Amino acid sequence: MREDAKLVFIFASICLALSVKYEPNWKSIDSRPLPDWYDKSKIGIFLHWGVFSVPAFENAWFWYEWKTAKDPAVLKFMKDNYPPGFTYADFAPQFHATFYDPDKWADVFEASGAKYVVLVTKHHEGFTLWPSAASWNWNAYDVGPHRDLVGALADSIRNRTDIHFGVYHSLFEFYNPIYLQDVANNYTTQNYVRNKALPELYELVNRYKPDVVWSDGDWNEDSTYWNATEFLAWLYNESPVKDTVVVNDRWGKDARCHHGGFWNCNDRYMPGKIIKHKWENCMTVDKRAWTHRRKIQIEDVMSIEELLAKIAETVSKGGNILINVGPTADGVIIPVFEERLKQMGQWLKVNGEAIYETQPWSQHTDNITFQGVWYTIRPQEKAVYAILTFWPENNQIILGAPVTTTKTRISMIGVETPLKWSLYRNKILIIELPILPVNKMPCQWAWVIKMENLKNY
Amino acid sequence: MREDAKLVFIFASICLALSVKYEPNWKSIDSRPLPDWYDKSKIGIFLHWGVFSVPAFENAWFWYEWKTAKDPAVLKFMKDNYPPGFTYADFAPQFHATFYDPDKWADVFEASGAKYVVLVTKHHEGFTLWPSAASWNWNAYDVGPHRDLVGALADSIRNRTDIHFGVYHSLFEFYNPIYLQDVANNYTTQNYVRNKALPELYELVNRYKPDVVWSDGDWNEDSTYWNATEFLAWLYNESPVKDTVVVNDRWGKDARCHHGGFWNCNDRYMPGKIIKHKWENCMTVDKRAWTHRRKIQIEDVMSIEELLAKIAETVSKGGNILINVGPTADGVIIPVFEERLKQMGQWLKVNGEAIYETQPWSQHTDNITFQGVWYTIRPQEKAVYAILTFWPENNQIILGAPVTTTKTRISMIGVETPLKWSLYRNKILIIELPILPVNKMPCQWAWVIKMENLKNY
Amino acid sequence: MREDAKLVFIFASICLALSVKYEPNWKSIDSRPLPDWYDKSKIGIFLHWGVFSVPAFENAWFWYEWKTAKDPAVLKFMKDNYPPGFTYADFAPQFHATFYDPDKWADVFEASGAKYVVLVTKHHEGFTLWPSAASWNWNAYDVGPHRDLVGALADSIRNRTDIHFGVYHSLFEFYNPIYLQDVANNYTTQNYVRNKALPELYELVNRYKPDVVWSDGDWNEDSTYWNATEFLAWLYNESPVKDTVVVNDRWGKDARCHHGGFWNCNDRYMPGKIIKHKWENCMTVDKRAWTHRRKIQIEDVMSIEELLAKIAETVSKGGNILINVGPTADGVIIPVFEERLKQMGQWLKVNGEAIYETQPWSQHTDNITFQGVWYTIRPQEKAVYAILTFWPENNQIILGAPVTTTKTRISMIGVETPLKWSLYRNKILIIELPILPVNKMPCQWAWVIKMENLKNY
Amino acid sequence: MREDAKLVFIFASICLALSVKYEPNWKSIDSRPLPDWYDKSKIGIFLHWGVFSVPAFENAWFWYEWKTAKDPAVLKFMKDNYPPGFTYADFAPQFHATFYDPDKWADVFEASGAKYVVLVTKHHEGFTLWPSAASWNWNAYDVGPHRDLVGALADSIRNRTDIHFGVYHSLFEFYNPIYLQDVANNYTTQNYVRNKALPELYELVNRYKPDVVWSDGDWNEDSTYWNATEFLAWLYNESPVKDTVVVNDRWGKDARCHHGGFWNCNDRYMPGKIIKHKWENCMTVDKRAWTHRRKIQIEDVMSIEELLAKIAETVSKGGNILINVGPTADGVIIPVFEERLKQMGQWLKVNGEAIYETQPWSQHTDNITFQGVWYTIRPQEKAVYAILTFWPENNQIILGAPVTTTKTRISMIGVETPLKWSLYRNKILIIELPILPVNKMPCQWAWVIKMENLKNY
Repeated sequence: MREDAKLVFIFASICLALSVKYEPNWKSIDSRPLPDWYDKSKIGIFLHWGVFSVPAFENAWFWYEWKTAKDPAVLKFMKDNYPPGFTYADFAPQFHATFYDPDKWADVFEASGAKYVVLVTKHHEGFTLWPSAASWNWNAYDVGPHRDLVGALADSIRNRTDIHFGVYHSLFEFYNPIYLQDVANNYTTQNYVRNKALPELYELVNRYKPDVVWSDGDWNEDSTYWNATEFLAWLYNESPVKDTVVVNDRWGKDARCHHGGFWNCNDRYMPGKIIKHKWENCMTVDKRAWTHRRKIQIEDVMSIEELLAKIAETVSKGGNILINVGPTADGVIIPVFEERLKQMGQWLKVNGEAIYETQPWSQHTDNITFQGVWYTIRPQEKAVYAILTFWPENNQIILGAPVTTTKTRISMIGVETPLKWSLYRNKILIIELPILPVNKMPCQWAWVIKMENLKNY
Repeated sequence: MREDAKLVFIFASICLALSVKYEPNWKSIDSRPLPDWYDKSKIGIFLHWGVFSVPAFENAWFWYEWKTAKDPAVLKFMKDNYPPGFTYADFAPQFHATFYDPDKWADVFEASGAKYVVLVTKHHEGFTLWPSAASWNWNAYDVGPHRDLVGALADSIRNRTDIHFGVYHSLFEFYNPIYLQDVANNYTTQNYVRNKALPELYELVNRYKPDVVWSDGDWNEDSTYWNATEFLAWLYNESPVKDTVVVNDRWGKDARCHHGGFWNCNDRYMPGKIIKHKWENCMTVDKRAWTHRRKIQIEDVMSIEELLAKIAETVSKGGNILINVGPTADGVIIPVFEERLKQMGQWLKVNGEAIYETQPWSQHTDNITFQGVWYTIRPQEKAVYAILTFWPENNQIILGAPVTTTKTRISMIGVETPLKWSLYRNKILIIELPILPVNKMPCQWAWVIKMENLKNY
Repeated sequence: MREDAKLVFIFASICLALSVKYEPNWKSIDSRPLPDWYDKSKIGIFLHWGVFSVPAFENAWFWYEWKTAKDPAVLKFMKDNYPPGFTYADFAPQFHATFYDPDKWADVFEASGAKYVVLVTKHHEGFTLWPSAASWNWNAYDVGPHRDLVGALADSIRNRTDIHFGVYHSLFEFYNPIYLQDVANNYTTQNYVRNKALPELYELVNRYKPDVVWSDGDWNEDSTYWNATEFLAWLYNESPVKDTVVVNDRWGKDARCHHGGFWNCNDRYMPGKIIKHKWENCMTVDKRAWTHRRKIQIEDVMSIEELLAKIAETVSKGGNILINVGPTADGVIIPVFEERLKQMGQWLKVNGEAIYETQPWSQHTDNITFQGVWYTIRPQEKAVYAILTFWPENNQIILGAPVTTTKTRISMIGVETPLKWSLYRNKILIIELPILPVNKMPCQWAWVIKMENLKNY
Repeated sequence: MREDAKLVFIFASICLALSVKYEPNWKSIDSRPLPDWYDKSKIGIFLHWGVFSVPAFENAWFWYEWKTAKDPAVLKFMKDNYPPGFTYADFAPQFHATFYDPDKWADVFEASGAKYVVLVTKHHEGFTLWPSAASWNWNAYDVGPHRDLVGALADSIRNRTDIHFGVYHSLFEFYNPIYLQDVANNYTTQNYVRNKALPELYELVNRYKPDVVWSDGDWNEDSTYWNATEFLAWLYNESPVKDTVVVNDRWGKDARCHHGGFWNCNDRYMPGKIIKHKWENCMTVDKRAWTHRRKIQIEDVMSIEELLAKIAETVSKGGNILINVGPTADGVIIPVFEERLKQMGQWLKVNGEAIYETQPWSQHTDNITFQGVWYTIRPQEKAVYAILTFWPENNQIILGAPVTTTKTRISMIGVETPLKWSLYRNKILIIELPILPVNKMPCQWAWVIKMENLKNY
């Protein structure tokens, strides 16, 4: 698209947004353009927090692993540490959030370079982290922290200029009897949806004005059961965030990867190619869990190199990345997570131009040096970026995709002098990486080659 | 009413019961005859049990006293014994019912001579003592006892031949947000009724088949808000207990003392005269509370003499008496309550004929010796009973109400020889009480004079 | 002994007390006259309170039943209600004494007619109810109540004019490792005695100035191991209570029933005859335990008739009775115990002259009507008392022991008119009991016949 | 010392060790040669674990800060989170060590390159981490973990070939009443020492056979109060570890920095010069505390660069370094600590020859480039090492200390090619550091220059 055409499109979108009434059907819902800020942001922080943070054992599905899957490790953990008959609900009063300091969290997220935050406000356990009228005595205000955990973070995040607040919400609940009754009724009833799931969503939106509504727990039912399009029509037409909000695709088994706003498809979704429709890769720094685990070890934690590689790959394919860190029941983001986030921020401070507000190029990786080279482009500067997540043995990187011209300029971000390059057999680009002493390196862990005036961009 | 007329009436009632469809309006609902067993029973046991049994401080309104009334004693108790921010819901996991043995309870109730039991299944705190689908994670199965407390007692009681099981249920809940929203909406919505109060009632009836549905917490709203007549029409027409169930009158501020089954009117209701419409006096052995109090003292406990006097007075005026004892959070009926109930049973074993299946006489107390003399009659035997709750100084009891004939026979229940009596000024009856050594007395605490062949009965 | 001789004896005793230095051997220790107040008092209250009051299951030996005897009921209780690995020490923080009001207790004890109180200050569990320097972090000040439970009661009792304060103290401790090491060393070491048992005793005496030091837990060792006579010599010679203090006999397996002050011999000791050496029957109102049990039932509680019979029998044989009631972990004496104590006080208010300051007669029960008749005498009034713990079928009581004279006067305490009596075959005394209406009876449950001017007294 | 002279010395020491009987006085005790392994080891791990790990707030002096220093932050923390009257002892049952896996710990310590481990077995709180007979019901076996935490780690460490086990033990205890009584008695008594402190030390040594006895809490008293020399004479003459054990200097205010084995002097002791007497720098990775803190942040954690610099500086001055990481109450070493330890191990794997078994050179840092250059020597190889904790701006390092010869060879550990060097004004050594691409660098964070055939070594 040419730039002027693009401007026209943007204006048109705005007009549309002002005038259009979305209908409660997927065709209409899907026609809404995704607000701009989301694609530009690229990186978000995901926070799994809840009653599962009390046992902090294995993962956020603790209740299910215990009662339905009967995971032997969980059974043993309960038998060894709790009296017979102890229930999941009995954990809730031990969720204290003693040191929860949302301003401190916001500082960390800002320093990480992330541009949005998605807080789990209710996971499959059904426990709401805000005082929901639909979840009386099973929420963080009535039991445990005795605090509106959602509101406190929303306020802290909103006080920052450059970061958006979002909410995760699970449609289904493992063991909510009203839900289970709807299931038993073969979905001829929607009592759970009308009295629990939807009232919660309306509360969340009206009260906390999130820019992301990140739905989950939809997979067993069609979106009609969830009344998803009705909610989304309201969200897009009337809600206080109708102009800024984005949603994902988890609104029913017919919707996943097909309808809604950006697509999450599966957890840790990583397509093999560039996807045209905006998507998001939600993943987690602890390789083994979404929630804090009391016995987490360093080997379970992604290295900064692994994390940056995952970011580069995701962005190169058109995705955003939503990076999860699970706070403790005390309300603390443990130091190793804080370290990773700050390392990320440090890297982005140098290399952010290859990430934020970029778009996929014609190809996401190189046809010669694949894996380890991830391309993005920056239309504003007509630049192509090759993000290297390794340093080549002989300090040369060989690329098949870029087509150079005589005007082509190649550099490493953070290094002033342009790089030397040559063509092998007139076609294959060989770039000499600079050999710099450690104290002169622009960054660690991954490096970005910037290519300007290529023929094929 | 003559006896044969009465029989006709009874048959007619039965036919009516078989054919009639009650309409959801008070006129129709009120037309249903009260099942026979209830009036005959006279004495029931009331059980206040719930999360309030954990602090077990002052009374069942603990939550309200704390948060709304701000009773200084409750505020001090919380300040002295709990960390700041501790909530009422935090008490629930400490409700263990460790020693709850419903068979043992049933033994005690049977030995007490009571003919029905009314268990608080949900008080104003909203915590259900059964695993209600409408009260997820705020019920005794999910939190605390981890047991269906209602079902266990229902089974134990039903295994006894001569005692009926009933359920107390509070319509309103102090702090249920859905309810509070209906109130804030000025009752233009009924979300709370449709999704909480009524589903609970249907569950209770269908699952536990109670012979008493004892409603409470109705007082702020009209019965139309509560959809009371709809529920009662279902209860009378279709429910599994339609032929045996009785209900009280607490179904809305327009219903109290006016509509429903028997009337409770206020707590500890004690009219000054005989009331034609069947009523019930609900009262409590601990003079200061309906719930167990950890610091209960003997001076707070009704003496057996006080208790028997209250029973006699109530029955003499046409009422039933519902005697409350509050179990501990451990599920124990404390020994002093067990003692009172067994003393009551011991007295009733001798004097039961003056209580069970009796009716009020033309007057409930005597016009000369009032207070301390309470009349009942037994149509089957054409007998008038004067229950004496004191022993007269000079061993003579002087009565103005009975009109004797030459055939009149006067005796004390449990004493073989008839009593001597005489008329003063041809009109006033003077009865000589027997002077018996303590080991020959038929009973302690209260004594019954039986009069046969009176003119005025 | 004649009265003047007695006075001489008393003065002599006092002089002795002022001048004598007791030696640390039994002969010298045993030579000390028992301070007068103790024998006159007859009735004391015993209080078993400690960490065992938290599980409040079965009895004060809970720890031993669990870990050594492996009582299946205790094992099941622990398995059902606590996580694996839970220890006895883990109970201590739940011992809150929330409602402990020693003034209220003192009121009840005074109303009961008891003349002394013996508080368990440390039972075999080793947990001290005062902040003992010898039991750091295993006492009620450091853990649980966070209060000096002993000092608080000592103060409240001392504020009453007519009641003495005493302390129970267990020499041995089930599982104290220092003690177990002494045992393993075959008592060649006394580390436990020197560093734990004796320091505690000195602390107790110096700090709380008890009039009773009630020792226990002595049975496995000789008194030499316990250094008992050294302690007692100090107690009698130098301690702040040297003139008033009494001790019992549980100071070693050689001492029980042989040495010390009054003799307890076994728990619930009840000899078949009058014992010349002062003794004490320690027993408990809950027939099944010395400690509060959360599931106590009325059938476990002694009736007032049983209790009075036990008092009469004990006193008739020269004993004192120490009546145990176990407070709850909350610090409450449960209502049924309070009721028994107050019933006892009510009876003693009428019949106290047959109990306090009495002595055994030549025989403790009657040779004709034995069991149910218990004799005491009151030298001051030259009166013989027959305490009847039953009411005879035909209102006649037949006695073989009293030898009447013409001056003999027989009455029932509380009844003004003397009783009619006659001699059968010139020898056997037949007394006519008064037939009184219930409201004229002087008391309930037991009745006292007072005989003056008998030949054989 | 020449090598053969040294051998003689070693043999002599061994003979001495076999024959000598140390006397209980400092002169004799101080004459014992330090077992060889200790100086060679250089790096140990320190573990502060105890009841303070439960509040895990601020530091290991929590109790003192709360009760004596009255730190406002601690007072607020207690007020906000616990009921009034909550004591320090009440924390102990929450010390669960749920995930304590000493084999996993041993793996981490081994991977860190540390050669010994010192576990806090009892800190000033007095709570023993083993079932000490001298600390009944105030130890980790009776309360909380219900496990012998010391024994479990001792076993796991002993199963590794190349790492020694040691115990930290605090002589004094903040609030032990027996100790406080000795203090009040102006140290005329030693009850605390005889019954608590010393029995614990004997238990520890006999039971766990530690190679380090790391004493602390000595500072208020002279070593005579602590009976230190008696204990040490036994330790050196008779104990099961007499040939291998090392101790520190904290045995009384007269001993610190003067007597004992190696000297710790103060915490974080870092002299300005080389100290001839063996010393140790105990310090902690969390800059703000010795104990785990639940709200630890990444900014509180030493970076790996800071840690390596501290190691180099310490070793250059003749010290060992004892690096503290505080486990959680769950028994987990948090990931960021594990990361630091493993980074250290990774560095030592390359550069260990400049650390282990080295000795100080004639000077610890350079006279030209001071701070950031730390010298060690390796007699075996006649090599001098300069550890650089920074990378010089222009890739040249300028040194004033080494005196070169024509045979001098200079290299960087991990880099094959020798480094180029030159002399400025015939005297000052200028070494060219290699400019290597990041993937060719031998290590990160600090680099070691090895100099052979210097004139001045």
